[in-house]
Amino acid sequence: MAEAPREIEELIALMARLPGLGPRSARRAVLHLIRRRDRLLRPLAQAMAGVGDSIRECATCGNLGTGALCTICADPGRATGQLCVVADVADLWAMERAQVYRGRYHVLGGLLSALDAVGPEDLGIPRLAARLADEGVNEVILALPATLDGQTTTHYLADRLAGVRITALAQGVPVGGELDWLDEGTIGAALRARRDLD
Amino acid sequence: MAEAPREIEELIALMARLPGLGPRSARRAVLHLIRRRDRLLRPLAQAMAGVGDSIRECATCGNLGTGALCTICADPGRATGQLCVVADVADLWAMERAQVYRGRYHVLGGLLSALDAVGPEDLGIPRLAARLADEGVNEVILALPATLDGQTTTHYLADRLAGVRITALAQGVPVGGELDWLDEGTIGAALRARRDLD
Repeated sequence: MAEAPREIEELIALMARLPGLGPRSARRAVLHLIRRRDRLLRPLAQAMAGVGDSIRECATCGNLGTGALCTICADPGRATGQLCVVADVADLWAMERAQVYRGRYHVLGGLLSALDAVGPEDLGIPRLAARLADEGVNEVILALPATLDGQTTTHYLADRLAGVRITALAQGVPVGGELDWLDEGTIGAALRARRDLD
Repeated sequence: MAEAPREIEELIALMARLPGLGPRSARRAVLHLIRRRDRLLRPLAQAMAGVGDSIRECATCGNLGTGALCTICADPGRATGQLCVVADVADLWAMERAQVYRGRYHVLGGLLSALDAVGPEDLGIPRLAARLADEGVNEVILALPATLDGQTTTHYLADRLAGVRITALAQGVPVGGELDWLDEGTIGAALRARRDLD
């Protein structure tokens, strides 16, 4: 016998499928929601339904928005000469938060992975190659994670994309980073990429 | 400038108010939902709306259900002589999962707390006292957490409730518990409550 009403058990089961929540924390979250029915539960249900109805993938870059094109692709002020390639939308948002890049993006929707059998077609890499010619791109900035799959994808793209300058984010000591806390790989990369001080 | 569409930012802000999720994990959860729009996002929105509309507090005990009385209070097979007092609905569910108690419950909805200015009226303790006479209760089992506020509330209720037997859950070594991992308080309580072996 379930101890909670069926409606609540079903909601707990769905909540437990969110990353970061397990069965126990989902149970706690659902009780938290029920205690805040008007201030949180109903607004959350409406916000989810709204996102489900209104949000779509940009036909050009894969970013999320409410129109056929995302606000970045639709913005004539965005430079078209540069194209920043990211693994997913969260990484695009992270780049935008940094406010250091004013060009357009291309969201792969994942990374090449032999283990998970993710190949170039799964990531829409042919579509990316087509964009380069269509939009007159002269630099592709690869902003992929510094993981094994990220580096594999970076190297694959550097080989695959022809006729444009290909760059990648620098690796090194993060701002505020103390050497004592950094892994050997990062210290090694930072040393190899050392620069002359004026 | 927000990097994500307004609808998504609003959903992230609401999700971040759930216990166990912060702004960053809420963002990750929302992207996870959008990628599983039909299998997770829409069902979750519907389940939340359904819970918001159908779930109510039992008028007698404070448990959650879909009717004026919860399934436990409405069950004639539940003994009325015993009443188990719990701090919240999650604790009631934990008791039910254990399948060791077949009586009724009373949900306080919190614990006495000088720090948070929670007094007896906030917990509906007068209503609990009224139930004892109305329902012919002969034993009140206090199943409150073994925390400072839980113990304060246990002692307050033991003083306040008259004319019935008052018991509390035993403290001791949890089943499967190794002494090496237990705190001194638990070991002390277990020693003081030691029992004769036949």
